Amino acid sequence: MTVDRILPTDEAHDLLELATDLADRELAPRAADFEARAEFPREVLRTLGRAGLLGLPYPEEYGGAAQPYEVYLQVLEILASRWLAVAEAVSVHTLACFPVAQYGSDELRKRLPDMLGGELLGAYCLSEPQGGSDAASLTTRAVRDGDEYVVSGTKAWITHAHSADFYNVFCRTGGPGAKGISCLLADAGTAGITPQATEKTMGLRSSPVAQIAFDDARVPAERLVGGEGTGFTIAMSALDSGRLGIAACAVGLAQGALDYAVGYARERQQFGRAIVDFQGLGFMLAELATQISAARALTLAAARLRDTGRAYSIEAAKAKLFATDVAMRVTTDAVQVLGGAGYVADHPVERYLREAKVLQIVEGTNQIQRLVISRALAKG
Amino acid sequence: MTVDRILPTDEAHDLLELATDLADRELAPRAADFEARAEFPREVLRTLGRAGLLGLPYPEEYGGAAQPYEVYLQVLEILASRWLAVAEAVSVHTLACFPVAQYGSDELRKRLPDMLGGELLGAYCLSEPQGGSDAASLTTRAVRDGDEYVVSGTKAWITHAHSADFYNVFCRTGGPGAKGISCLLADAGTAGITPQATEKTMGLRSSPVAQIAFDDARVPAERLVGGEGTGFTIAMSALDSGRLGIAACAVGLAQGALDYAVGYARERQQFGRAIVDFQGLGFMLAELATQISAARALTLAAARLRDTGRAYSIEAAKAKLFATDVAMRVTTDAVQVLGGAGYVADHPVERYLREAKVLQIVEGTNQIQRLVISRALAKG
Amino acid sequence: MTVDRILPTDEAHDLLELATDLADRELAPRAADFEARAEFPREVLRTLGRAGLLGLPYPEEYGGAAQPYEVYLQVLEILASRWLAVAEAVSVHTLACFPVAQYGSDELRKRLPDMLGGELLGAYCLSEPQGGSDAASLTTRAVRDGDEYVVSGTKAWITHAHSADFYNVFCRTGGPGAKGISCLLADAGTAGITPQATEKTMGLRSSPVAQIAFDDARVPAERLVGGEGTGFTIAMSALDSGRLGIAACAVGLAQGALDYAVGYARERQQFGRAIVDFQGLGFMLAELATQISAARALTLAAARLRDTGRAYSIEAAKAKLFATDVAMRVTTDAVQVLGGAGYVADHPVERYLREAKVLQIVEGTNQIQRLVISRALAKG
Amino acid sequence: MTVDRILPTDEAHDLLELATDLADRELAPRAADFEARAEFPREVLRTLGRAGLLGLPYPEEYGGAAQPYEVYLQVLEILASRWLAVAEAVSVHTLACFPVAQYGSDELRKRLPDMLGGELLGAYCLSEPQGGSDAASLTTRAVRDGDEYVVSGTKAWITHAHSADFYNVFCRTGGPGAKGISCLLADAGTAGITPQATEKTMGLRSSPVAQIAFDDARVPAERLVGGEGTGFTIAMSALDSGRLGIAACAVGLAQGALDYAVGYARERQQFGRAIVDFQGLGFMLAELATQISAARALTLAAARLRDTGRAYSIEAAKAKLFATDVAMRVTTDAVQVLGGAGYVADHPVERYLREAKVLQIVEGTNQIQRLVISRALAKG
Repeated sequence: MTVDRILPTDEAHDLLELATDLADRELAPRAADFEARAEFPREVLRTLGRAGLLGLPYPEEYGGAAQPYEVYLQVLEILASRWLAVAEAVSVHTLACFPVAQYGSDELRKRLPDMLGGELLGAYCLSEPQGGSDAASLTTRAVRDGDEYVVSGTKAWITHAHSADFYNVFCRTGGPGAKGISCLLADAGTAGITPQATEKTMGLRSSPVAQIAFDDARVPAERLVGGEGTGFTIAMSALDSGRLGIAACAVGLAQGALDYAVGYARERQQFGRAIVDFQGLGFMLAELATQISAARALTLAAARLRDTGRAYSIEAAKAKLFATDVAMRVTTDAVQVLGGAGYVADHPVERYLREAKVLQIVEGTNQIQRLVISRALAKG
Repeated sequence: MTVDRILPTDEAHDLLELATDLADRELAPRAADFEARAEFPREVLRTLGRAGLLGLPYPEEYGGAAQPYEVYLQVLEILASRWLAVAEAVSVHTLACFPVAQYGSDELRKRLPDMLGGELLGAYCLSEPQGGSDAASLTTRAVRDGDEYVVSGTKAWITHAHSADFYNVFCRTGGPGAKGISCLLADAGTAGITPQATEKTMGLRSSPVAQIAFDDARVPAERLVGGEGTGFTIAMSALDSGRLGIAACAVGLAQGALDYAVGYARERQQFGRAIVDFQGLGFMLAELATQISAARALTLAAARLRDTGRAYSIEAAKAKLFATDVAMRVTTDAVQVLGGAGYVADHPVERYLREAKVLQIVEGTNQIQRLVISRALAKG
Repeated sequence: MTVDRILPTDEAHDLLELATDLADRELAPRAADFEARAEFPREVLRTLGRAGLLGLPYPEEYGGAAQPYEVYLQVLEILASRWLAVAEAVSVHTLACFPVAQYGSDELRKRLPDMLGGELLGAYCLSEPQGGSDAASLTTRAVRDGDEYVVSGTKAWITHAHSADFYNVFCRTGGPGAKGISCLLADAGTAGITPQATEKTMGLRSSPVAQIAFDDARVPAERLVGGEGTGFTIAMSALDSGRLGIAACAVGLAQGALDYAVGYARERQQFGRAIVDFQGLGFMLAELATQISAARALTLAAARLRDTGRAYSIEAAKAKLFATDVAMRVTTDAVQVLGGAGYVADHPVERYLREAKVLQIVEGTNQIQRLVISRALAKG
Repeated sequence: MTVDRILPTDEAHDLLELATDLADRELAPRAADFEARAEFPREVLRTLGRAGLLGLPYPEEYGGAAQPYEVYLQVLEILASRWLAVAEAVSVHTLACFPVAQYGSDELRKRLPDMLGGELLGAYCLSEPQGGSDAASLTTRAVRDGDEYVVSGTKAWITHAHSADFYNVFCRTGGPGAKGISCLLADAGTAGITPQATEKTMGLRSSPVAQIAFDDARVPAERLVGGEGTGFTIAMSALDSGRLGIAACAVGLAQGALDYAVGYARERQQFGRAIVDFQGLGFMLAELATQISAARALTLAAARLRDTGRAYSIEAAKAKLFATDVAMRVTTDAVQVLGGAGYVADHPVERYLREAKVLQIVEGTNQIQRLVISRALAKG
């Protein structure tokens, strides 16, 4: 199903064409194999970086494309409709560039062109094994020792744990609570920073996640992003953008799943007719298509709030909640459309289902999104 | 909850302020009484007409405001959040002006300023007692006799049956099927046109509906809108716009219901706390708020397709389906938030619930919307 | 749709036949008119009492029928499928007999034959205007004065407020909290007990509810049910039974609505076929039928736990939650099946929808049921 | 959560205790490993057979336990709560014994003791690669040649394809349509019967499924079950029982998932409290628990209809539809309760989710169940 998009500029139109072309040529043919091998497609990311798709929302002076989020998210969506792991990598990397781009010193910002160009891949080390949704209580410790911070602790659920060139490490430099948290930009390869074994995830295997152990790792003090104690603020402001990214990934994944199911239902004959012509199935597909359109519209509406400088945190939470719930529903039903065929790896829909589930969990579980929204309603 | 809207022009901003002001001053204080009396607020419509809100999407040369649908629909939404019957009256009237504005002769178009200004209120006579969703099989007959058409038959579910000054009458001038249907613009008061007893509807009582009997009613041949046989085309093209109107009404109704429920939940204390602070209730409200945001975004996205001249029929069907299902869910749960208090007329939420139900039925039942969407998916 | 029921005894079979017969002959023909007039059908209750249907679960020594709850609930269900207000009256009255039957003195129990035979109709005065779900904080006060209690306060949402012959009045005889509450059996007509104006409810109008004002009403001390301070225990143990009653009412209402919708869908032709044969509609009806069967099975399973003397409180909460949510969904969709015809009083489905809503609220809102269930899960 | 079950006999009680004991000792400790290796636990099935759990609903004269379906299904449920693949194997095997037990010649029935005792494992060859839900159009051909049938064609989605000792082969011995179909009992190892490569399924991997190629396989004519042309009748009557089996498996899987999630939520601390105490999560768990109770009650109610010799086909379809949809929902949400931890193989919930999906597809997709139910409603 071609989606008819109203875009703000011709440049945006070209970017989406480029993304579609790369998604079809570079992503789609590789997805199944990399997933089966649980291998991260580092080269594909480099290709995207060289095509200019890794720094879309950042200023041109740093090597970005100065695109509004409305456009960036539609690029993500298109990538996700072909290979979620790659779209998620783009989203995570874009997020990983945010602290330096927004809060970093001029010195740190010199790294941005390589980051936004895809030569340096980033990771985001916020979660901890015990922490879950309660980020403010993190326990990874950074103690100032001369010109360095000495970092100890364990970070968990780190996308790009083994592939990243740099890590944003959120750690405690002060007392308990949100105000004691700082953000350090650490290089991969630093002594004392050790990615652990890859988690055995249900899906999204070509985007391996792992814990990272910090064992008296020494990070230069100039790698502090923002001031001491600003880490929680950085993390939270990045989260809103990250939620939009996940929402766009969810829309793309759902659209990919629906397109596949509809294509199958047009071909598959039962009782002498294409099954898409049975109203029972057709009405289900109509519901799914409607939900996806709503998820896309909601996500882009939230993006436009961001793009016009308005408060968008609550609308981002709604978009993340809604779009990922839609992706779960659509992928579950897409398998159903194929019946037994949908349950085996000959078709991608069972993979889509396994991938969709993680989207309801990352960047704040959907329970956390509901909490954020309900608190805003309570305040009025 | 204030909705943060990105509007295309300052004029649009002013229009929405005007609509909000009129909704608060002229609509809100009257709604409950008119509903209780099942009385149509003809004067309120006149007020809206004089304020320029009855011809929003039509060209300025005919007395319209030349507003994009994106803006017109947000006006509808605001009116609906205060009094659905009035918003629906605006939507129906706007629809009733469409045939003449789009397909009418120059002579007929001379009536548009009075129509768009609210001096002449319109009705739309398409449905029939047996017809339901199958409009192409309508049986009301118009036989040419000299300079007149002689019309016989019965139309059903006519909004403004007793209040309208003019009727768009869809009738059969030719053979069976869609191509035998024409549209006549008949004046109320024509001999042989008799509105019947008002239907006892579950809600929306201040927008009374009734059957209209046509008993050899004579309508001048120059009142033919478009040519003979174009009636079905006119009806169908108007329907897409009408569906957007109902979607916007549904968003407004749902928003009104949520706002009321949230307001109550902030005040109401149970077990020593405001009930809005109980997560069980808060999560439900968060879901509802999310659904409403998605419905609004989907409706406005469909409107922008129309405004930029693209095909929007399928997206209008999605918006109508989604927004009205959301309105049903939100109003049902809004009553639940108030508990026993929600079940009595002391609060408006039980009325909202009764009103929401009709939106799932009008302008094509939600089953018809699913059919429209599923056929588009089947075709690809 | 005939429901195939496995019943424990021939007597049960006869009782259900009797109930079906009375429901068809005495209830069905009167429901619409009494609803329109908002009149309580006192005589119909008397008829049911004389037929032995008002004391089904109580011992034969008091004039009851000694039936298991499994049978009693199916009688309720059958009545509710024809006229919810009457079934609810039976449920409330049965509940109102519970305190005396279970906790009353021998003296008080002498009244049971007249109560169970329907000569004396009962009401249950627990809720208060501010209390809502938080029954333990009730404020109606009863002060001992010689051989009497002097009762002051206001009770709310009282079914049979104007029709009852006796009231179970839950009032505070001691300090704050659950342990300060007692239950008094007060006669209607006692000086100082004044039913207030009837609430304007969305539905269930032939079962009028009202507040009752207690203004130094004097109730003989021998009318204390159980000891002082046992009121909350009485109220809570009655609630579990009451929830089963509401669940059964919900199943009956939903079945009545589905049967009507299916009957209509078999007759109604569109596009040349009976609409029940369109798979889109057929699948929806299949879902509804499935939900109703599940609700019935769950309700009767909970009843059998009660009948065999096991803990059934949590399963009763589940049955109340599930069955009433099903009733809301089924009645909403039943209106949809009829389309515009469903929205008007010519058919009963719009009434069913209005009635269903109250079931999600009474005997503990469905939020309270979720709370009860979740606490049990948390305890393990 | 202990389920309080009302059982018809002490024997049933003992059987369920035995099943629970075996499930805890023999199933639970092995499930994860066998799943990881995609290995069928043939020995576990033998153990169950020796314990008498493979012939529960069959007459004692054939070595069965003469248990009502109500009891058999609860055994299945308990097994499924520990290891779905084993429960499904029991269900499939029980189904595979049905044709011989119900329709087989005395000669064929001599095999029943070994079948019901688990020495001979069975498979059920009905589906075909193109056939899907349209069983009556199957194309596998059996041509009579002297004392043998020569069978050619391909069967698909065969559980126990590589492990079974005997196959029920549904094949065409006559003309097109349902009446041309017969059932043959073929031994594994017959020349020309070749199981193909195992399907790469999303889950339920320790119950491998595969196609089986029949290439002029010669099956003795005395292996015909029932007469020629009765195959479709056999298949359909077995299907109803099979649907109950899948429903019971779904209830068990869902219960296992909920129990695990609740256990985790009691332990897991966030923001200083066990997460089960957060009402947002608690309400979700309450909903899931309610759905499971309803699914169990519905399944057992349908079983009791079968046990008392009544028509139960429609109620079996409802139970299969409802219980498997519940299992999908519960397992999806169980992963959510664990958050990121739920998405990895350290906990079984992600496996539960992958397993649940297949239950919506087998023994007639849930679309087919809706079709069956809606046709019954249409007929009245």
